[in-house]
Amino acid sequence: MTRAGTLTGVPGLAWSDDGQATLGGPLLELAERLDRRFVALARGWEAAEVRFPPCIAAADLERIDYFRSFPHLATFPVSLDAGEDNIGRFTGGAPVGADGHVTLTDLAPVVAVLTPAACYHLYAHHRGQRFDGAAYFTTRATCFRRETHYLPLERQWSFAMREIVCLGTSGETRAFLDRATTEVDALAIELGLPLAWAPATDPFFRPSRNPQYLMQLVEPTKHELRFDDRLAIASTNLHHDHFGRAFDITRTSGAGDAPQPVHSACVAFGIERWLAAVVHRFGSHPAGWPQVGP
Amino acid sequence: MTRAGTLTGVPGLAWSDDGQATLGGPLLELAERLDRRFVALARGWEAAEVRFPPCIAAADLERIDYFRSFPHLATFPVSLDAGEDNIGRFTGGAPVGADGHVTLTDLAPVVAVLTPAACYHLYAHHRGQRFDGAAYFTTRATCFRRETHYLPLERQWSFAMREIVCLGTSGETRAFLDRATTEVDALAIELGLPLAWAPATDPFFRPSRNPQYLMQLVEPTKHELRFDDRLAIASTNLHHDHFGRAFDITRTSGAGDAPQPVHSACVAFGIERWLAAVVHRFGSHPAGWPQVGP
Repeated sequence: MTRAGTLTGVPGLAWSDDGQATLGGPLLELAERLDRRFVALARGWEAAEVRFPPCIAAADLERIDYFRSFPHLATFPVSLDAGEDNIGRFTGGAPVGADGHVTLTDLAPVVAVLTPAACYHLYAHHRGQRFDGAAYFTTRATCFRRETHYLPLERQWSFAMREIVCLGTSGETRAFLDRATTEVDALAIELGLPLAWAPATDPFFRPSRNPQYLMQLVEPTKHELRFDDRLAIASTNLHHDHFGRAFDITRTSGAGDAPQPVHSACVAFGIERWLAAVVHRFGSHPAGWPQVGP
Repeated sequence: MTRAGTLTGVPGLAWSDDGQATLGGPLLELAERLDRRFVALARGWEAAEVRFPPCIAAADLERIDYFRSFPHLATFPVSLDAGEDNIGRFTGGAPVGADGHVTLTDLAPVVAVLTPAACYHLYAHHRGQRFDGAAYFTTRATCFRRETHYLPLERQWSFAMREIVCLGTSGETRAFLDRATTEVDALAIELGLPLAWAPATDPFFRPSRNPQYLMQLVEPTKHELRFDDRLAIASTNLHHDHFGRAFDITRTSGAGDAPQPVHSACVAFGIERWLAAVVHRFGSHPAGWPQVGP
């Protein structure tokens, strides 16, 4: 196996200094095959596919306390204030310096965040809705996370994430994660990747001051599937009724009781990291890669 | 046919005030089928598929004078300066106001722009390269264009664009556009969409002061395929050697002459606008939509 951080010579991979990857050839094909495989997994729950926009309303993230927990990771899409004078000042100056940095003039109001995790959209999308049974969804998104350092395919400013999400009762979300864990294990064996699950915490800002982080330590709700004991290529996440309460999404019990806040859980796949795992394990020549059906 | 701007009731379409669409159900399936059809078209040239990152270096756009021509359209991805004090000030204030606007503190250097057109990446990607024959590529990108108003599927802050690009001699790029025009015409007839080509100009900032705009008036290099005489759902663009010169991409003649700056041309498809055209023409019920193979 190759060592961490040595993936720049992979055919079909081009790497930008700002932490982003270009994919072509067999590497792009492998990414697409893996994603189709995750979608096939999702079909086992008859999950409905949804395509969300590339950004999410800041007000929706505020509602789930995102800016207290992960402000350091956020990337905001901003435009110049549309006034002609303001834009004239921008173009009339030196918009881009020799260092490649942009000098912005006045900004229009900033209202959104580039999607930090694919499934957040789903909860906002279903706000105020009531479900009478468990509901399953799948979505893929380009996610943005600003980090202090980047590594090709392993740690990127932008990357592709596929998620499968369950909205249901506490029991339904736990059963969903049990089955998802079993099925992902089977996939790992089929692909010949050395992977193991481990409890994990999210990368909170000032973790020791954040009650949600302390909760995760006490009762792990996140488990990562780690390649070579270090690189998380998938995770399962149990949210209890956190998103249900935040967005007033409810679930009837069937016993005639009042609707309760829905529980939710998700399994997430970091597509570029699966590429990294395949290349580390089987080398950069596509002939050595495992077949990925269907 | 429905009138412009009346598409909010389409099943599978959800619309955000900030000009972005969520797609699900048969509408998402139609979007995917259309994209696969455009890819099938690209295969006619054996075009290589490439997946670029969601943003492009500002320095690359500066090189093609983007910020003088389209500064009003640009959306920049920005993050907070990573200093803990700065981020603490952000979280300690009220990050998101009651109006949904974010109050940012100090920003990290801004180095990129969210992709404004899918093909720009290709020229930057091939900088300094020499081609010995015509080369064809296809790529799909989520593009961002800030506008003064938005309409579902017709005019969005973010939208999907599929492009097919030719790098070659002047003759090769013109032959590419001729053939692309013919093939897209055949597709329009097959789908039963009332479409017609018209010369067009790009939406320059202060157009009358921009020599590139004046050039486009004198010798049209852009043609739009318009639905119902108003909505451009595809375009062909002849760039001469503009991008070849900007990124030092060259093409040998085969006659032993020195390599010349490569010419380029592209055909671009705005995927949501094709959805809009289908829905306007055939109604919002999927049973009435044309079959889109393969």
